[in-house]
Amino acid sequence: MKDQTKEGQKNFVLRGNIIYSKTPQELSVTEHGFLVCSGGKVKGVYETLPKEYRTLPLTDYGDAMIIPGLTDLHLHAPQYSYRGTGMDLTLLDWLNTYTFPEEERYQDEAYARLQYARFAEDLKMSPTCRAAIFATIHPQASIILMDLLEKTGLVTFVGKVSMDRNGSKTYTEHSAPEAAASLLSFLSLVRSRNYQRTFPILTPRFTPACSDDLLMSIGQVQKQTGIPVQSHLSENPEEIAWVRELCPNASCYGDTYQRAGLFGGTCRTIMAHGVWCPDNEIEMILENGVYLAHCPQSNTNIASGIAPIRKYLDLGMHVGLGSDVAGGASLSLFRAITDAIGVSKLYWRLIDHDERPLTFAEGFYLATRGGGSFFGDVGAFEEGFAFDALVLSEKSGLYRQEPLINRLEQFVYLPEQQQILAKYVAARRIF
Amino acid sequence: MKDQTKEGQKNFVLRGNIIYSKTPQELSVTEHGFLVCSGGKVKGVYETLPKEYRTLPLTDYGDAMIIPGLTDLHLHAPQYSYRGTGMDLTLLDWLNTYTFPEEERYQDEAYARLQYARFAEDLKMSPTCRAAIFATIHPQASIILMDLLEKTGLVTFVGKVSMDRNGSKTYTEHSAPEAAASLLSFLSLVRSRNYQRTFPILTPRFTPACSDDLLMSIGQVQKQTGIPVQSHLSENPEEIAWVRELCPNASCYGDTYQRAGLFGGTCRTIMAHGVWCPDNEIEMILENGVYLAHCPQSNTNIASGIAPIRKYLDLGMHVGLGSDVAGGASLSLFRAITDAIGVSKLYWRLIDHDERPLTFAEGFYLATRGGGSFFGDVGAFEEGFAFDALVLSEKSGLYRQEPLINRLEQFVYLPEQQQILAKYVAARRIF
Repeated sequence: MKDQTKEGQKNFVLRGNIIYSKTPQELSVTEHGFLVCSGGKVKGVYETLPKEYRTLPLTDYGDAMIIPGLTDLHLHAPQYSYRGTGMDLTLLDWLNTYTFPEEERYQDEAYARLQYARFAEDLKMSPTCRAAIFATIHPQASIILMDLLEKTGLVTFVGKVSMDRNGSKTYTEHSAPEAAASLLSFLSLVRSRNYQRTFPILTPRFTPACSDDLLMSIGQVQKQTGIPVQSHLSENPEEIAWVRELCPNASCYGDTYQRAGLFGGTCRTIMAHGVWCPDNEIEMILENGVYLAHCPQSNTNIASGIAPIRKYLDLGMHVGLGSDVAGGASLSLFRAITDAIGVSKLYWRLIDHDERPLTFAEGFYLATRGGGSFFGDVGAFEEGFAFDALVLSEKSGLYRQEPLINRLEQFVYLPEQQQILAKYVAARRIF
Repeated sequence: MKDQTKEGQKNFVLRGNIIYSKTPQELSVTEHGFLVCSGGKVKGVYETLPKEYRTLPLTDYGDAMIIPGLTDLHLHAPQYSYRGTGMDLTLLDWLNTYTFPEEERYQDEAYARLQYARFAEDLKMSPTCRAAIFATIHPQASIILMDLLEKTGLVTFVGKVSMDRNGSKTYTEHSAPEAAASLLSFLSLVRSRNYQRTFPILTPRFTPACSDDLLMSIGQVQKQTGIPVQSHLSENPEEIAWVRELCPNASCYGDTYQRAGLFGGTCRTIMAHGVWCPDNEIEMILENGVYLAHCPQSNTNIASGIAPIRKYLDLGMHVGLGSDVAGGASLSLFRAITDAIGVSKLYWRLIDHDERPLTFAEGFYLATRGGGSFFGDVGAFEEGFAFDALVLSEKSGLYRQEPLINRLEQFVYLPEQQQILAKYVAARRIF
């Protein structure tokens, strides 16, 4: 799939210390190199600027580092306000106590406008260039969020949430037909806009909150429109047991989506978590090319466990990172990189000594190419890739390490040092 | 033991939202309360200011939160410069590749002065009020660090490291007598100063780096001087196996210290980590009243594992938190609180479902009273306690949660929101 955004006129050059992932294991490092944007896409990275680009406007970022934009494959915009609270609960209690009451408030459009404006501004200023985002069940509030995100210049998928069971009394859709109608109304509102960078995504909350009928009707919409899908999968054992009760005929949790045509194949799909996938589910994910959003901070905060990402990578699964705000407290994908590496080390030490920890290069890959590829050719500085770039500089140069890869590693590990000097998304400088 | 610092003249009142731990499980919360400092110690917290204190100078911090100072029970000052790099190695490789070459540089006093000045300034501005710190093997550089720390107003223990085996060729002391002489020279330099807030601590690096003879002679110094001790214990399985090889007659790793009189009892002792203590070692720790510095970020970063802190707390062990810079990348004890809670959730989920996760209140306790008590009556706002306090305010009030405990939890989880308006240590406002 090609990147859906187009900035055909853009031709320019950035200069700096350029780093990107060639493979999960290998970083390309070019000190004081040139990064060329041609026709709105990456042309390449050069040690010496080729003659044909010498007339293009050039911004020299000196000693700063230039890396591809980061992609957040999973987060909940309406949960942003209460991130970092209620961390003493596990998933199902946490949903009932914090999530549903807060999400319900977004039926009030003024409230939605206020909160989403703050969220959109913070996401814009974060290291994230692209994201797949859950909204609430409200079509109008979801459009408010999309309007705001479109203005940021970020590229995002936004999903109005669909759920017709096991919500709260006051935060739910009351039947599969009502939920389906609400989804269609959302999609019709989206069509009435002329978004360039903001796209709808079908968003059944998770199987416990979606009847078979609802999943089937979302599947029909998917088939008719080709719109991609996001949901949750095998996050914690209690949730999986519940799905088994609710859907006794499904071969696994993933099968509940697959039977509705919402699990990869022709349907581009992100599933968040996958902490506890059984083998047949892993096979299904691989066969169908489903993307897994690995959310290590959330999986720690709400005590879900550790997803076996080394195994998934070795199997060739599509894996990216998710902040999963507000299961994760931090919006920062830099933090997600260090958390992914950290929990993989605990997995190696405590669970399976054959699954060696993620390296820094692999963590960086997950946040750039790994998740980026859901959006097309995104997350690297190779010819034809979307021009997403972050220009990074430490607040203090006092501790700067050599070589450049160590300097980048230190930058990623030290939030107090992080400063983004400029951010380019799909060839547009957004700050 | 009483707090060693004295500020007998100080009498004043702070006003704000006052929170501290009464027990590991229970937080005391007083909205818009009064915190009285009398004779340089905490007098108490009051909803209404008693008559006798109404003439004292009062600082009203309005809506800010006032909490006890935090204690960092374990960190390495000379490793501060390279924190957040080389995180792809485990303990023993990491020491040889990064730690020893960097620590060696501190024989150059100009280098030590430069780097330690940065460290001391950052520690001063951090949430930490008290700390137990490793320096290097160099007496002169260690004194430079102590001079700088004394100026910050923090209360610290600083240890010149002792090590006579298994360092690098160029970073080691060459015999037990040489190491013992170096320690005495350090202690003599300390006595020549007139520190009010900076104290020496005996610091055998860890058993693999200290011959039996060296441990015995440090033990003699301990007996003669009563100076406390800090070291490392049962951090990772490879290290423990090595200790078993080096000291085949010891009943456990901890016994290698105990045989030298360096493991609690009359010798006030901090041992860092304790991730993999066998039962007889746990008993020894409890019987001897040894303090354990729990360093969750380091134990994750260098793949050591997860210490069973719930079990230790239930057994009544003295436990505090350590940043363990540079095994930990972050100097922030707020981060250490969230990491301690996070890994305890993974422990519960993955290792032992009987050991329930730490609550937020318990994590907060560890960082305040838990570690603080190593310094005497420190870490709470009860009568006679040292007057250590942080005045906290969010950078943005946009997301502030109710009630106050949730607000504090959110503050602790969101580094981007953290702002320390004022910091009091042993009754002195240091900024």
